[in-house]
This record gives sequence, C-alpha cells and structure tokens, in this order.
Amino acid sequence: MDKGRREDPMHDILQELKTRLQEINDLGSATSLLHWDQATYMPPKGAAARARQLATLSRLSQEKFVDPAIGKLLDQLEPWAEEQPYDTDDASLIRVVRRDYEEAIKIPTAFMAEFSEHSALSYQAWAKARPENDFASLQPILEKTLDYSRQLADFFPGYEHIADPLIDFADYGMKASDVRVLFGELRQQLSPIVQAISEQAPADDACLRQVFPEAEQLQFSEEVVRQLGYDFQRGRMDKTHHPFMTKFSLGDVRITTRVKEEFLGECLYSVIHEGGHAMYEQGIRRELEGLPLASGTGAGLHESQSRLWENIVGRSRAFTEYFYPRLQALFPAQLKDVPLETYYRAINKVERSLIRTDADEVTYNLHVMLRFDFELDLLEGKLAIKDLPEAWHARFAEDFGMRAPDDRDGVLQDVHWFAGQIGGAFQGYTLGNVLSAQFYSQALEAHPEISDQIRQGQFDTLRTWLTENIYQHGRKYTEPELIERVTGGPVALEPYIAYLKGKYGELYQL
Amino acid sequence: MDKGRREDPMHDILQELKTRLQEINDLGSATSLLHWDQATYMPPKGAAARARQLATLSRLSQEKFVDPAIGKLLDQLEPWAEEQPYDTDDASLIRVVRRDYEEAIKIPTAFMAEFSEHSALSYQAWAKARPENDFASLQPILEKTLDYSRQLADFFPGYEHIADPLIDFADYGMKASDVRVLFGELRQQLSPIVQAISEQAPADDACLRQVFPEAEQLQFSEEVVRQLGYDFQRGRMDKTHHPFMTKFSLGDVRITTRVKEEFLGECLYSVIHEGGHAMYEQGIRRELEGLPLASGTGAGLHESQSRLWENIVGRSRAFTEYFYPRLQALFPAQLKDVPLETYYRAINKVERSLIRTDADEVTYNLHVMLRFDFELDLLEGKLAIKDLPEAWHARFAEDFGMRAPDDRDGVLQDVHWFAGQIGGAFQGYTLGNVLSAQFYSQALEAHPEISDQIRQGQFDTLRTWLTENIYQHGRKYTEPELIERVTGGPVALEPYIAYLKGKYGELYQL
Repeated sequence: MDKGRREDPMHDILQELKTRLQEINDLGSATSLLHWDQATYMPPKGAAARARQLATLSRLSQEKFVDPAIGKLLDQLEPWAEEQPYDTDDASLIRVVRRDYEEAIKIPTAFMAEFSEHSALSYQAWAKARPENDFASLQPILEKTLDYSRQLADFFPGYEHIADPLIDFADYGMKASDVRVLFGELRQQLSPIVQAISEQAPADDACLRQVFPEAEQLQFSEEVVRQLGYDFQRGRMDKTHHPFMTKFSLGDVRITTRVKEEFLGECLYSVIHEGGHAMYEQGIRRELEGLPLASGTGAGLHESQSRLWENIVGRSRAFTEYFYPRLQALFPAQLKDVPLETYYRAINKVERSLIRTDADEVTYNLHVMLRFDFELDLLEGKLAIKDLPEAWHARFAEDFGMRAPDDRDGVLQDVHWFAGQIGGAFQGYTLGNVLSAQFYSQALEAHPEISDQIRQGQFDTLRTWLTENIYQHGRKYTEPELIERVTGGPVALEPYIAYLKGKYGELYQL
Repeated sequence: MDKGRREDPMHDILQELKTRLQEINDLGSATSLLHWDQATYMPPKGAAARARQLATLSRLSQEKFVDPAIGKLLDQLEPWAEEQPYDTDDASLIRVVRRDYEEAIKIPTAFMAEFSEHSALSYQAWAKARPENDFASLQPILEKTLDYSRQLADFFPGYEHIADPLIDFADYGMKASDVRVLFGELRQQLSPIVQAISEQAPADDACLRQVFPEAEQLQFSEEVVRQLGYDFQRGRMDKTHHPFMTKFSLGDVRITTRVKEEFLGECLYSVIHEGGHAMYEQGIRRELEGLPLASGTGAGLHESQSRLWENIVGRSRAFTEYFYPRLQALFPAQLKDVPLETYYRAINKVERSLIRTDADEVTYNLHVMLRFDFELDLLEGKLAIKDLPEAWHARFAEDFGMRAPDDRDGVLQDVHWFAGQIGGAFQGYTLGNVLSAQFYSQALEAHPEISDQIRQGQFDTLRTWLTENIYQHGRKYTEPELIERVTGGPVALEPYIAYLKGKYGELYQL
C-alpha cells in the first residue's frame, strides 16, 4: 500500500482534475470519429445531421472545459505542482492545462459563437466565389474576418505583435518577430536557389504521369508506411478527398489518403506524410493516454515529422534505391524501362508554380512566407483587404517571376482565411520544413549509420531516436522548449539550407 | 409572420425541451458511431480507449436525460399536450418522452452503475466459461443477475407479472400474460408441424455449401437490398462479425453483414434481414428527425420488419423465381446445374438443431419460447439457477426430441442473460415472426398484386404500404397501439400459422 500517496491531499484533487479532463478527451475523440467518418464512409445524406452532431459535441466539450471548477482545481494544484520537477507528468499536465484553460476562458463564448457562424458563412461564400473568380463579393466578408481576428488577438493583451496570440493557437511560444526574421533569411537564401534551378532544363516527370491502378498504389503505400514503422495494430488507412491524420486514442491513430491513377506522385508521398504525423502520435508515452498531454506539440513540430518522413527520407536517394526496384516490380509495364535516376529526378522536380498545395519542397516555402507576410501586414493595418489581390500578384511576381492569371489561383486559392482567422494559419508549414532538417541532422549526428540503414530499408534507428527525443513527450514541452531540448538552441535555418543545397545542388549541378 | 405561434407560451417551452432532447440524441448518435466503428473498422489496439469513450458518452447522455429540468418541462407541457389530437407530432413526443423519462428516473443511478459493472464482469466470465462448458463457475454470477433483474422490476411496482417491467424495456405494453398465452398456443401449433417435417426426408442444402467468393456474394446482396428499397444515399453496408443495423440519423442508417464463402445462405439473407430493419428506420417521417420519436417502436415490431423481408419475401418462391436466375448467372460453376426447386428447398430447409441463431424460421420459435418460459419461471422463483442446465436439457428434449451434448450448446449458448437482465430478452424474436405474417396478410389484402410484383422484382407497393402504415410513425404509437391500428386487433397467430402451413405444407407435402 502506497501510504504516502493515500495521505497526500493532492491525490484526490489531481484525480478529480484528470477525471474531468478524460471526459472532455472522450468527447473530443468522439468528435474526431464523427469527422473521420464524415470524410471517409458517411453516406451523402448523412451530412446535415452530422453537422449538428459535430456542433453539439464540440459545444459540450468546450462547456465542460471552461467550467470554473477546472480553474479551482488548478488553483489548488499549482502550489504543489511548482514543487515537483518541471517535466514530471503531473507537473507538466497542470502547467499545460492551465495554459489551455486561460486561453479558453479569455475568449467570450458569445464572441466565439459569432465568429464561428461568420466563418461558416465565409466558407460557403468562398466555395461559391472562388470558381467564379469573384474577390469583390468576398471583400466585405474578409474585412469582417480581419476585424474578428484583431478582436480575437485583443483578448490576450500584452502581446509584442498582434499576430502573436494567433500564432500561439497553432505554435505556442513562437513570436511573429522571430518567425519574421527566420523567414526573411530563408527567403533570401531560397530565392537564388530557385532562380538557379529555373535556369536549368526542367526535370521530366513523365514517368510518374502514366496510369497506375489504384489497388496497387494503395498496396505499395501501405507496405512502405508499415516498413517505416507506422503500426497498423494501432491504426488503419482509408481513402478520402483531402488526406489527413486523426487520433481517437494512442491505440487508434488513423491515416487517410487519395489516389490519382494518372499520377504516381500523389498517393505514396501523401501516405508517407500522414504516416509521419501518425508515427509522432503513436510514439507518445502510454502513461499520457486520455489526457491533454497525449498529443503533438504545435503545428510546426507536427509538420516537421510529416515532412521529415515524406521529403528528407521518402524523397531521398537512399530510400529510392531501396524501394524503387519494388515499385518497378509492381508496375513493370510502366516502370521497367525507367532508370532509377529518372524516377528520382521526377519525384524531386522543382518548378515555380501557382498553387501552394501542388508545390515541390523547395518552392513550397515561398508560397508560405508570402502568406505569412500578408497576415502580418493585414493585422498591422499596413495593407487593406481591398488591396490584397493586387498585392498578391505583385509579391508573387517578385518571388516566382510569374503572375497568376486571376484571383482564383491567386489570393483565393487557400481555404484558411475563409474558414478561420487571419493570422497564425500558415507559418507551421515552413517551420515544419526548417525543423525537419534541423532534427534530422541531430539524428544523423547521433547515428551516422542512418542513411545507410535507409538504403537497406531499415528505419528503426531513426524512428527510435525521434521517439525518444520528440514523440514520447507529447505536449509536455512547448515547441521552443522541445527544439531547445533536442538541438541545444532555437529553430535554426542552416541545416535546412544545407540539406537543400546538398540535394538540389547535386540534382541540378548548381 | 406566424402571429399565433409567437404568442403561444408553450412554443418556447416545447422548443427548450426539443433542444435538450436533440442534444441527447446527438450524444446517442455519436455513441452509435463509436459502436459501429468498433464493430467494423477499429484497429485491435483501439479497444481499451473505445470502451472508456462509450461509457463516458452513455453516462453523459443518461445524466442529461434524467435532469429534473426535463421533468419540469414535461409538467408544463402536458396540460397543453392533452388538448392536442393524440397523434400530432408534439403531443406524441411529450407522451413518449414522459414514458421514457419516468422509466429512466425510477432506476437509481447507483443501482444502474452496479448492475452495469456486474453485467460487464458476467460477460467476461461467460466468454471464458462457455468454451470450457463450465456452468458451475457462472452459477453464482447468474444468481446475482437474477437478483438484480428482480430488483430492476421492483423499481416499477404495480406490475401484474414481475417480468412485465422488463418486457416493457423492449416491447412496451406487451404483458407476460398475453405473451404466455400467445406462445403457448404457438407451441401447440408448431410442434406437430415440426414433428411432421422431421418425419420426411430432410431437404438437401448441398447446393448452398460450395465455395462462393466473397466479393460476388457482397455484390449480389447489395443489388438485392437496393432493389428491395434500401437507400444507399442514406446508408451503407460494411462487414462485421455479428451483423447489425445502426442509425446515426434518418439520413444515415447503416447495415452490416458477414460472409461465409462456403455457405451461400449466410450473407444474402442476413443482408435482407438487416435491410428490413434499416428500411423501417429510413421510412420514418423526416419531421421527427433528431427526436426520440425517430426510431422503431419496440423489439418485436422491429423484428417483424427484418423477418418479413428476410423470410416472407426473401425466402418466398416468387422472390426466388426473380432472383435465382441472376444468382445462377453470377455463380455459373456452382449453380448452373442446380434447379430452382432445389435451391428453393435448400434455403427453406427445416431441421431440428441445437443452436438458436442457426435455426430455420419454423424451429426458431421453439428456441425462443423455451427461453421465454425459463425467464418467467426464474423470475417467479419456480426454477432455481442451479437447476437451469438440467431443466434446459429436459425441455429441449421435449420440444426438439434431442438433447445437447453439453451446456455449451445448451443454456450457455446465448449471450443475453450474461450481458443484461433475465426477463424481456427474447420474446421480441418470436413476436416479430408472428407479426411479420400478420402485417403481410394485411398488405396482401390491400394489394393482392404484391406477390406477382415480387415475382417481377418489384417491391414498391409492399414497401410503400409498410411505410404508410408502420414505418413513418416511428415511436409515435406503442407496439400494441400500432398493431391495433394496422390490423384492427391485437397480435394474432392465425396469419403466421397459415403462412407456415401453406409454405411448408407445399414444400414437405404435409
């Protein structure tokens, strides 16, 4: 009998907090399942009731979380928690829940309801206006969104930059000023690389643009992600329109994908990407199950894992050397006469293009940084919504040397600003790219054998290193804390630039 | 503007009740989705957290329903509702919710929690003891279950028979005494039929026991159920271990099935059965969506629809004449030399056998009635749990002329008593069979052309009649009310006996 524990008055209070949090977590898991089902198997006419069910469960879990009783439990627990080592499970739980709680209660319920309703209407308007290339009809809506976004930030006074609270929602602890400096430097370094590549003969990806039957594509992708270490005992893979990863518990972390039969580059790399997100969640310590720590810590860090597996591993020469012969065996008619080098160049084709989501790993960041800069300009009042479309075209010409023919493929291409706030929506994508290389270089330093192992189809050393250093901790550390812990410093550009220069320098003889 | 309505003070109160009920309904739908997913796609290691999520959501929805605020709203609404026509949507809603509410609040929460926990342990013990043929280890558990079952009934004092409150949970308004009389008569009439058939040469179902690949079986079953009228825009079909129907909204009513490649009789008739349940739910009036009326009214009535479509339609000569040539075309190697008559006899093979769930439509009822009688005897104290295994063997010998080799295929074969109360668990299956014939004869009386239409593969007249008379009403009427409304009297045996005598008299030249 654990006498000390039984006498500890904190034990019961902590237990009550955990019971409440677990109930909220269960509601959240059910909500995630409602979403997953909606995106995979739900019959068309289930949509109306599903929207209501999602709204009800989200509201119930929100109501339970902002209950003042949670605040009181935290008040009681904090003096005790502060005496515990910083990274014990319980001290971390109390610290992270306090942060979430303060965030949740500072936003008035009425405001949130109003903004949600506006976002839903805005999304509908965008879905109609984008195909019609009709920015004019969206302008007043987007002006209102900008207004809501500023109000939202103002519920968190004391910020350095008005975007900081909005960035905190996705990447807690990342400041606009830091990101701006990082991105400015990245843009300077990237532009000449993109320019140099654009002066070369474009890579030929015709080998990917044949017909590859769906069943074999799915089978191969499943084999690959299983070999990387995604655990199908604790997950599964289904088809959807817009691939995503979702989690119902640490024992049930699912990925989704889509297949284009006429383009081999879609399904496989999307599966590796979502598999990267999923391995992060599957790697969280069992002891954190059912509580708010059992989740990845921030958008950028999560993206760093999907990109690490998708690009640094999945599009590497070593990975290709191992898997390409298997792919050729699966698609002999299409690939038997395509040399590995041709395939490798095809999957790493760099090309300046209009659409962010179709972009290669080099130019992708230019798309993101453009959006990030506009978010800051809009929030600061330096740029008006009415001037945004033209500003977009101008900046795009500057960064890409080309101009979109219309707003549909310009400012209207992404859903983000039309389904949520302006601010904090995009930086995670590029932070993820930068961090993926930073973490990978740390892993290589600890285990230089990793790239030889990849060439043998072995991924355990890398995955184990990532699990020990990143995955297992869940949300125990903030993004900046975890980066510091793993790399000994803040987010840094050098490994990423070195990675790009090494890989694309060789590919394009720069 | 609807001035009258705005001034009606009842409008707001009714609206508040509906809002609360809809929230409870949404929690229930999410719970059903958690169940469906568990039985279809959930990865093995998702089970532990899923059990907790299910428990949490069930508890939350129960808590919200027994909220005294619901009772107060009902108190306020009832005087008004009583002035409305009996079967208006609102009056029916208030009447049915009052009944559910009184049932829910009469069972103390602590009792329910204790009994649930006992049931969970009992299920685990049964799952272990059944393969080991170990009744002894289950005896004390089952004694406790009987005790809980009596306590449960006693929360509803004033009953005529102690089983009545337990029967009410499944088949509200059906009394043990009525069911006993009905079943006694049925047993008397069935026994000679079974006896006469058993004296004939047994039907040969070898044609069903070849290898039929899964994909084609699923494809054919889907075609059939679609043609019967199951709407795939508002549903879907997936594989599972123990087929069931489930509903998340009137726009999302799903069926599940299983396939035995070495037995053609499993998948198809199981799909028609679940399709029957599902067409009932899909046929409920849209106006009742999201509220407690939007559901079938009672176990027996629900089963009457699955059995009507599965047996009276699906195993009829007319149905077989239409679909069998299609089945032959799909499985030429297996069926092209099998005459229709052979197939028809095979799917209607009657045989005394040990296991209820494998039984044909004639002997099935003997299994059910045996269990129903034991439930009454146990609850009345006429039979002790310790004497149940031997009593089972004795009664089985009497009804079937054979004896199970052990308790595994005797008293331990069904999960029901090991996962819930003793009482009310079985009568719905046979009530369903009886009612299926009673309703079908009414439909034929109104539309004598129905059997010719079935022979043409047309099912609209029948389904429309069922929708208008039964499906659309949901739970607006109790089972006895609806039977009276449709047939002009109470549940009656004659149509069912006439159906069996006609069909099996012809098949076995009785």
